[in-house]
Amino acid sequence: MTTDTGFYSIIDYTVDGPDTQREIVTAFAEIQQRWVRFYPGYRSARFHLSTDGTRVYNIVHWASETDYRNFVATSDTEGRMAAIREALDGLSGKAEPRMSGSPTYVVGREVGPGPQQTDA
Amino acid sequence: MTTDTGFYSIIDYTVDGPDTQREIVTAFAEIQQRWVRFYPGYRSARFHLSTDGTRVYNIVHWASETDYRNFVATSDTEGRMAAIREALDGLSGKAEPRMSGSPTYVVGREVGPGPQQTDA
Repeated sequence: MTTDTGFYSIIDYTVDGPDTQREIVTAFAEIQQRWVRFYPGYRSARFHLSTDGTRVYNIVHWASETDYRNFVATSDTEGRMAAIREALDGLSGKAEPRMSGSPTYVVGREVGPGPQQTDA
Repeated sequence: MTTDTGFYSIIDYTVDGPDTQREIVTAFAEIQQRWVRFYPGYRSARFHLSTDGTRVYNIVHWASETDYRNFVATSDTEGRMAAIREALDGLSGKAEPRMSGSPTYVVGREVGPGPQQTDA
Protein backbone atom coordinates (compact mmCIF):
# COMPACT_ATOMS: atom_id res chain seq x y z
CA MET A 1 0.00 0.00 0.00
CA THR A 2 2.98 2.27 0.43
CA THR A 3 6.23 2.63 -1.46
CA ASP A 4 8.02 4.32 1.44
CA THR A 5 10.85 2.04 2.53
CA GLY A 6 12.31 4.72 4.80
CA PHE A 7 12.99 4.34 8.47
CA TYR A 8 12.24 6.99 11.04
CA SER A 9 13.05 7.95 14.56
CA ILE A 10 10.49 10.18 16.21
CA ILE A 11 11.09 11.96 19.49
CA ASP A 12 8.52 14.29 20.95
CA TYR A 13 8.52 16.71 23.82
CA THR A 14 5.95 18.72 25.67
CA VAL A 15 7.30 22.20 26.30
CA ASP A 16 6.31 25.34 28.16
CA GLY A 17 6.06 27.75 25.24
CA PRO A 18 7.32 29.02 21.88
CA ASP A 19 10.64 30.21 23.31
CA THR A 20 11.43 26.68 24.45
CA GLN A 21 10.34 25.34 21.05
CA ARG A 22 12.88 27.62 19.40
CA GLU A 23 15.61 26.70 21.90
CA ILE A 24 15.03 23.00 21.23
CA VAL A 25 15.24 23.50 17.47
CA THR A 26 18.53 25.38 17.77
CA ALA A 27 20.08 22.89 20.19
CA PHE A 28 18.95 19.76 18.38
CA ALA A 29 19.77 21.07 14.91
CA GLU A 30 23.32 21.45 16.19
CA ILE A 31 23.26 17.89 17.50
CA GLN A 32 22.23 16.65 14.06
CA GLN A 33 25.08 18.60 12.48
CA ARG A 34 27.72 17.40 14.94
CA TRP A 35 26.61 13.82 15.50
CA VAL A 36 24.21 12.51 12.86
CA ARG A 37 23.82 14.12 9.42
CA PHE A 38 27.04 12.75 7.89
CA TYR A 39 26.17 9.05 8.29
CA PRO A 40 25.21 7.11 5.14
CA GLY A 41 21.48 7.05 4.48
CA TYR A 42 20.68 10.11 6.59
CA ARG A 43 17.94 12.03 4.78
CA SER A 44 16.71 14.75 7.13
CA ALA A 45 15.73 15.83 10.60
CA ARG A 46 12.55 17.89 10.66
CA PHE A 47 11.40 19.80 13.70
CA HIS A 48 7.63 20.08 13.88
CA LEU A 49 6.42 22.83 16.21
CA SER A 50 2.84 22.87 17.44
CA THR A 51 1.07 26.11 16.62
CA ASP A 52 -0.01 26.42 20.26
CA GLY A 53 3.61 26.40 21.46
CA THR A 54 3.28 23.30 23.65
CA ARG A 55 4.96 20.56 21.69
CA VAL A 56 7.90 19.61 19.46
CA TYR A 57 8.26 16.51 17.29
CA ASN A 58 11.68 15.75 15.89
CA ILE A 59 11.37 13.32 12.99
CA VAL A 60 14.64 11.90 11.66
CA HIS A 61 14.40 10.17 8.31
CA TRP A 62 16.80 7.43 7.19
CA ALA A 63 16.84 5.82 3.76
CA SER A 64 16.45 2.36 5.28
CA GLU A 65 16.50 0.44 8.52
CA THR A 66 19.93 -0.88 7.52
CA ASP A 67 21.28 2.67 7.40
CA TYR A 68 19.80 3.46 10.78
CA ARG A 69 21.21 0.28 12.32
CA ASN A 70 24.62 1.09 10.84
CA PHE A 71 24.46 4.56 12.39
CA VAL A 72 23.58 3.10 15.78
CA ALA A 73 26.31 0.47 15.54
CA THR A 74 29.13 2.72 14.34
CA SER A 75 28.41 6.11 15.90
CA ASP A 76 29.46 7.44 19.29
CA THR A 77 26.21 6.82 21.13
CA GLU A 78 27.60 7.83 24.53
CA GLY A 79 28.91 11.11 23.20
CA ARG A 80 25.64 11.84 21.42
CA MET A 81 23.55 11.00 24.48
CA ALA A 82 25.72 13.26 26.61
CA ALA A 83 25.24 16.07 24.08
CA ILE A 84 21.46 15.53 24.18
CA ARG A 85 21.43 15.66 27.99
CA GLU A 86 23.55 18.80 27.91
CA ALA A 87 21.18 20.38 25.36
CA LEU A 88 18.14 19.62 27.52
CA ASP A 89 19.86 20.81 30.69
CA GLY A 90 20.82 24.04 28.92
CA LEU A 91 17.26 25.04 28.02
CA SER A 92 15.95 28.03 29.93
CA GLY A 93 12.43 26.57 29.68
CA LYS A 94 11.03 23.12 30.39
CA ALA A 95 10.86 20.15 28.01
CA GLU A 96 9.63 16.68 28.88
CA PRO A 97 10.08 13.72 26.56
CA ARG A 98 6.87 11.89 25.71
CA MET A 99 8.47 8.77 24.27
CA SER A 100 7.29 5.36 25.35
CA GLY A 101 9.24 2.34 24.16
CA SER A 102 11.32 2.29 21.03
CA PRO A 103 11.47 5.55 19.01
CA THR A 104 11.83 3.81 15.63
CA TYR A 105 9.08 3.78 13.02
CA VAL A 106 8.13 2.61 9.57
CA VAL A 107 5.38 4.07 7.39
CA GLY A 108 2.61 1.48 7.32
CA ARG A 109 0.57 3.29 4.73
CA GLU A 110 0.20 6.57 2.90
CA VAL A 111 -3.10 7.97 1.64
CA GLY A 112 -2.63 10.55 -1.11
CA PRO A 113 -5.12 12.96 -2.64
CA GLY A 114 -8.04 11.44 -4.51
CA PRO A 115 -11.79 11.39 -4.93
CA GLN A 116 -14.11 11.00 -1.98
CA GLN A 117 -14.85 7.35 -1.27
CA THR A 118 -18.52 6.62 -0.78
CA ASP A 119 -20.66 3.55 -0.27
CA ALA A 120 -22.42 4.11 -3.59
CA MET B 1 16.17 28.03 7.65
CA THR B 2 13.53 25.87 6.02
CA THR B 3 11.64 26.09 2.77
CA ASP B 4 8.75 23.94 3.99
CA THR B 5 5.62 26.07 4.05
CA GLY B 6 3.41 23.06 4.66
CA PHE B 7 1.00 22.65 7.53
CA TYR B 8 0.57 19.44 9.47
CA SER B 9 -1.79 17.77 11.86
CA ILE B 10 -0.23 15.08 13.99
CA ILE B 11 -2.24 12.67 16.08
CA ASP B 12 -0.58 9.93 18.05
CA TYR B 13 -1.81 6.95 19.95
CA THR B 14 -0.36 4.43 22.32
CA VAL B 15 -1.64 0.98 21.42
CA ASP B 16 -1.50 -2.54 22.78
CA GLY B 17 0.27 -4.26 19.89
CA PRO B 18 0.89 -4.68 16.17
CA ASP B 19 -2.64 -5.97 15.51
CA THR B 20 -4.09 -2.73 16.86
CA GLN B 21 -1.57 -0.73 14.81
CA ARG B 22 -2.86 -2.45 11.68
CA GLU B 23 -6.50 -1.94 12.67
CA ILE B 24 -5.89 1.77 13.20
CA VAL B 25 -4.22 2.12 9.81
CA THR B 26 -7.13 0.41 8.07
CA ALA B 27 -9.80 2.40 9.91
CA PHE B 28 -8.12 5.78 9.62
CA ALA B 29 -7.06 5.32 6.01
CA GLU B 30 -10.77 4.88 5.27
CA ILE B 31 -11.57 8.06 7.20
CA GLN B 32 -9.06 9.96 5.05
CA GLN B 33 -10.68 8.56 1.91
CA ARG B 34 -14.23 9.37 2.98
CA TRP B 35 -13.75 12.66 4.79
CA VAL B 36 -10.45 14.37 4.00
CA ARG B 37 -8.36 13.54 0.92
CA PHE B 38 -10.51 15.40 -1.63
CA TYR B 39 -10.14 18.86 -0.05
CA PRO B 40 -7.89 21.39 -1.82
CA GLY B 41 -4.32 21.38 -0.58
CA TYR B 42 -4.46 17.89 0.92
CA ARG B 43 -1.08 16.25 0.31
CA SER B 44 -0.99 13.01 2.29
CA ALA B 45 -1.75 11.13 5.45
CA ARG B 46 1.10 8.93 6.60
CA PHE B 47 0.75 6.33 9.30
CA HIS B 48 3.98 5.79 11.21
CA LEU B 49 4.06 2.53 13.16
CA SER B 50 6.60 2.02 15.93
CA THR B 51 8.72 -1.05 15.38
CA ASP B 52 7.92 -2.22 18.93
CA GLY B 53 4.18 -2.25 18.19
CA THR B 54 3.22 0.25 20.89
CA ARG B 55 2.55 3.46 19.02
CA VAL B 56 1.01 5.03 15.92
CA TYR B 57 1.57 8.56 14.59
CA ASN B 58 -0.79 9.81 11.92
CA ILE B 59 0.75 12.80 10.15
CA VAL B 60 -1.54 14.66 7.75
CA HIS B 61 0.19 17.08 5.41
CA TRP B 62 -1.53 20.14 3.92
CA ALA B 63 0.01 22.46 1.34
CA SER B 64 -0.58 25.48 3.59
CA GLU B 65 -2.30 26.63 6.73
CA THR B 66 -4.88 28.34 4.52
CA ASP B 67 -5.80 24.99 2.97
CA TYR B 68 -6.09 23.38 6.38
CA ARG B 69 -8.28 26.23 7.70
CA ASN B 70 -10.48 25.97 4.62
CA PHE B 71 -10.88 22.24 5.24
CA VAL B 72 -11.85 22.86 8.87
CA ALA B 73 -14.27 25.64 7.91
CA THR B 74 -16.01 23.87 5.03
CA SER B 75 -15.95 20.18 5.96
CA ASP B 76 -18.43 18.20 8.03
CA THR B 77 -16.53 18.20 11.30
CA GLU B 78 -19.33 16.56 13.28
CA GLY B 79 -19.64 13.73 10.78
CA ARG B 80 -15.89 13.22 10.71
CA MET B 81 -15.59 13.23 14.49
CA ALA B 82 -18.40 10.69 14.74
CA ALA B 83 -16.57 8.50 12.21
CA ILE B 84 -13.36 8.76 14.25
CA ARG B 85 -15.17 7.82 17.46
CA GLU B 86 -16.79 4.90 15.67
CA ALA B 87 -13.41 3.78 14.31
CA LEU B 88 -11.84 3.87 17.78
CA ASP B 89 -14.82 2.10 19.36
CA GLY B 90 -14.61 -0.58 16.68
CA LEU B 91 -11.02 -1.58 17.42
CA SER B 92 -10.62 -4.98 19.02
CA GLY B 93 -7.50 -3.71 20.85
CA LYS B 94 -6.83 -0.60 22.87
CA ALA B 95 -5.69 2.81 21.59
CA GLU B 96 -5.24 5.93 23.69
CA PRO B 97 -4.68 9.34 22.17
CA ARG B 98 -1.56 11.13 23.41
CA MET B 99 -2.44 14.58 22.11
CA SER B 100 -2.13 17.59 24.35
CA GLY B 101 -3.42 20.88 23.07
CA SER B 102 -3.74 21.77 19.41
CA PRO B 103 -2.71 19.03 16.91
CA THR B 104 -1.48 21.50 14.27
CA TYR B 105 2.17 21.95 13.39
CA VAL B 106 4.61 23.79 11.18
CA VAL B 107 8.15 22.68 10.34
CA GLY B 108 10.44 25.05 12.19
CA ARG B 109 13.59 23.75 10.59
CA GLU B 110 14.99 20.94 8.49
CA VAL B 111 18.57 19.68 8.71
CA GLY B 112 19.63 17.81 5.59
CA PRO B 113 22.69 15.65 4.96
CA GLY B 114 26.05 17.38 5.14
CA PRO B 115 29.53 17.31 6.60
CA GLN B 116 30.11 16.92 10.32
CA GLN B 117 30.19 20.27 12.09
CA THR B 118 33.11 20.66 14.42
CA ASP B 119 34.53 23.44 16.56
CA ALA B 120 37.71 23.56 14.50
